[in-house]
Amino acid sequence: MVRGRISRLSVRDVRFPTSLGGHGADAMHTDPDYSAAYVVIETDAEDGIKGCGITFTLGKGTEVVVCAVNALAHHVLNKDLKDIVGDFRGFYRQLTSDGQLRWIGPEKGVVHLATAAVLNAVWDLWAKQEGKPVWKLLVDMDPRMLVSCIDFRYITDVLTEEDALEILQKGQIGKKEREKQMLAQGYPAYTTSCAWLGYSDDTLKQLCAQALKDGWTRFKVKVGADLQDDMRRCQIIRDMIGPEKTLMMDANQRWDVPEAVEWMSKLAKFKPLWIEEPTSPDDILGHATISKCHNRVIFKQLLQAKALQFLQIDSCRLGSVNENLSVLLMAKKFEIPVCPHAGGVGLCELVQHLIIFDYISVSASLENRVCEYVDHLHEHFKYPVMIQRASYMPPKDPGYSTEMKEESVKKHQYPDGEVWKKLLPAQEN
Amino acid sequence: MVRGRISRLSVRDVRFPTSLGGHGADAMHTDPDYSAAYVVIETDAEDGIKGCGITFTLGKGTEVVVCAVNALAHHVLNKDLKDIVGDFRGFYRQLTSDGQLRWIGPEKGVVHLATAAVLNAVWDLWAKQEGKPVWKLLVDMDPRMLVSCIDFRYITDVLTEEDALEILQKGQIGKKEREKQMLAQGYPAYTTSCAWLGYSDDTLKQLCAQALKDGWTRFKVKVGADLQDDMRRCQIIRDMIGPEKTLMMDANQRWDVPEAVEWMSKLAKFKPLWIEEPTSPDDILGHATISKCHNRVIFKQLLQAKALQFLQIDSCRLGSVNENLSVLLMAKKFEIPVCPHAGGVGLCELVQHLIIFDYISVSASLENRVCEYVDHLHEHFKYPVMIQRASYMPPKDPGYSTEMKEESVKKHQYPDGEVWKKLLPAQEN
Repeated sequence: MVRGRISRLSVRDVRFPTSLGGHGADAMHTDPDYSAAYVVIETDAEDGIKGCGITFTLGKGTEVVVCAVNALAHHVLNKDLKDIVGDFRGFYRQLTSDGQLRWIGPEKGVVHLATAAVLNAVWDLWAKQEGKPVWKLLVDMDPRMLVSCIDFRYITDVLTEEDALEILQKGQIGKKEREKQMLAQGYPAYTTSCAWLGYSDDTLKQLCAQALKDGWTRFKVKVGADLQDDMRRCQIIRDMIGPEKTLMMDANQRWDVPEAVEWMSKLAKFKPLWIEEPTSPDDILGHATISKCHNRVIFKQLLQAKALQFLQIDSCRLGSVNENLSVLLMAKKFEIPVCPHAGGVGLCELVQHLIIFDYISVSASLENRVCEYVDHLHEHFKYPVMIQRASYMPPKDPGYSTEMKEESVKKHQYPDGEVWKKLLPAQEN
Repeated sequence: MVRGRISRLSVRDVRFPTSLGGHGADAMHTDPDYSAAYVVIETDAEDGIKGCGITFTLGKGTEVVVCAVNALAHHVLNKDLKDIVGDFRGFYRQLTSDGQLRWIGPEKGVVHLATAAVLNAVWDLWAKQEGKPVWKLLVDMDPRMLVSCIDFRYITDVLTEEDALEILQKGQIGKKEREKQMLAQGYPAYTTSCAWLGYSDDTLKQLCAQALKDGWTRFKVKVGADLQDDMRRCQIIRDMIGPEKTLMMDANQRWDVPEAVEWMSKLAKFKPLWIEEPTSPDDILGHATISKCHNRVIFKQLLQAKALQFLQIDSCRLGSVNENLSVLLMAKKFEIPVCPHAGGVGLCELVQHLIIFDYISVSASLENRVCEYVDHLHEHFKYPVMIQRASYMPPKDPGYSTEMKEESVKKHQYPDGEVWKKLLPAQEN
């Protein structure tokens, strides 16, 4: 089924001026412009199918990620897709272990974000050629093939190839029923759309009321910039949603460890389910309750150190499906519920594939599990997420849901797209 | 004394084709071209003094770091140097916590390397204006001023401002004598020049014989690619240097944890003082004996977890003097000897300032302490390191020893310098 040789790779810097509306603002990122390095790969097959991949950024610096994608391009160009997916572990290793490039990572920061964008495009291409959404490609894939996509370097003390295979083989039991269930009911989500730090109390109330009407039962609020402010905003939300519904908090790495303890003791009365990223994402011993991490080695240790009670994967910060597979399997081994990070631009589109696969083929459980949802920028995607009754409905279109509308890309290209041509001169004044 | 407003920042991609000679090759980096993003900042003062800063890279990807330096430039341009050094903590925080840029770090990988290059240039400028080498600027600086250069975010659970001040105040005792001692005898070094993986046994023997003649007593060998090969090479070196001299080993992140244990049990008979980077630099719980890390938060945990017996700072991977200060102080608090990483291009030139300062003002001890030395590429620097009797002699020229010879930069600029204009067409064939 898989066909063609990669004949072209292009990458563009696409930015949405979200900071103008205070969307996405948190304690550390006060003025994000949700952005993406957007990769398109083409093959010499005559089917016209393109693979599209993104990695999410916050505006400035997207050009640095674009530069890193270009530095990786030679590993992809002129390769047969068949050879890539036939030895996906080897290809992953090649991208992440380039003898010269790994110095400026390794497997973290700019180069790892660029790696994710490139690999996301490869997965999109593969799934489109197979005529399946990525989650379904994964669900239908033989466990041995799945395992061959994973690089186990640095994690074999916790998860070996044999462990992974065993977990996946056990996951075959009841798979059909869970797939049916997903298609009917979707995967439970929570919303972060109401309570960005950039919103006024009025906006917060209005969005919260609307979300309740739409059937949302789980809400996340950003905290960490100012304690009095946090107290007031948490009170508003808790009052509106009542004592039974779920409230999560996210400090976005704002605190030192002692500060986190003190601050959270004050916010505890609002009964948060979790506090997310209380401190540096590098601080394994700082005991994050839940954490977005930059690679499987950090996740491994958080699990080993029993430093988290929930685990947040990210479809763009980790090395695409490949590295996320290893983290999902480690989470299963430690029986820690996975609650993916999403939002930004495109993160919801991508991560839904991973979490639906996780339920059907790995975790087989919905207990304490919920996937983040943010209601922004979906209109720019060709196959946007579909939320029904506060759940992600499994996508049916082939691919990784990563393809953007060409007119959106053109309009938002930085700095030459129409949107920025208008905005930039205004911002300079 | 400090004067001028930063009026210009330029950054260049400078690469030395070291891979042609097998220099610098290790188990993970098989063909490094030692390179640097080279930053020069100028002020509007009429003294003509420029600040030069580098960050070390391995060839490919240097252009990505250059791109990141340009993304940071707006934080530096049009600032008074007086304001920068007057609130160096604030300036450091601004560079590392930019609300949009930090997403592609934070404080790791490409952006952190770029931050180091920029800050290294600022320190060079500052020291040159004061007419002192950086180590002397630091040694003479009031402890309160030193502390004001450090960002304590994420480390206050281990080191507070008060702790730092106390350590530095204690360090004043006997300072004068230690400074005299350094000027007379220098700081003990070890050599990594003999045993790169790219060298034949003959080259190894020849370099080792020469090093012994030159008075070296401590030698580092690269291991990890092939066990039989390692056994043979370690035997050669141990035979040549005898049982009393010191041998270190460096696996450059090659192994998983179980692999490291097995491999090292085989190499133990050659009596290595340490095994460096046996596994992923992110794997705190993987118990590195000695480790080069990407920021103070990782070092903090290695110290907390008692996971290292020696601590390796790096003048370019950490955020310049500022972040290295925090790590030196934490190492002092835990009484772990600091043995800096050096080599590459310029790393020796920079790190000698830090370790000489450390001895005079912080650790006050030479026990178990030794600084890496590699005999490459010093000829491209205006103020190259001076080694006497296997020790670093304190530099006397003002600045951070980071300034490169303009003709060297021009010749090695990538891809347009003379050297690359010749090499690139040959490599393409």
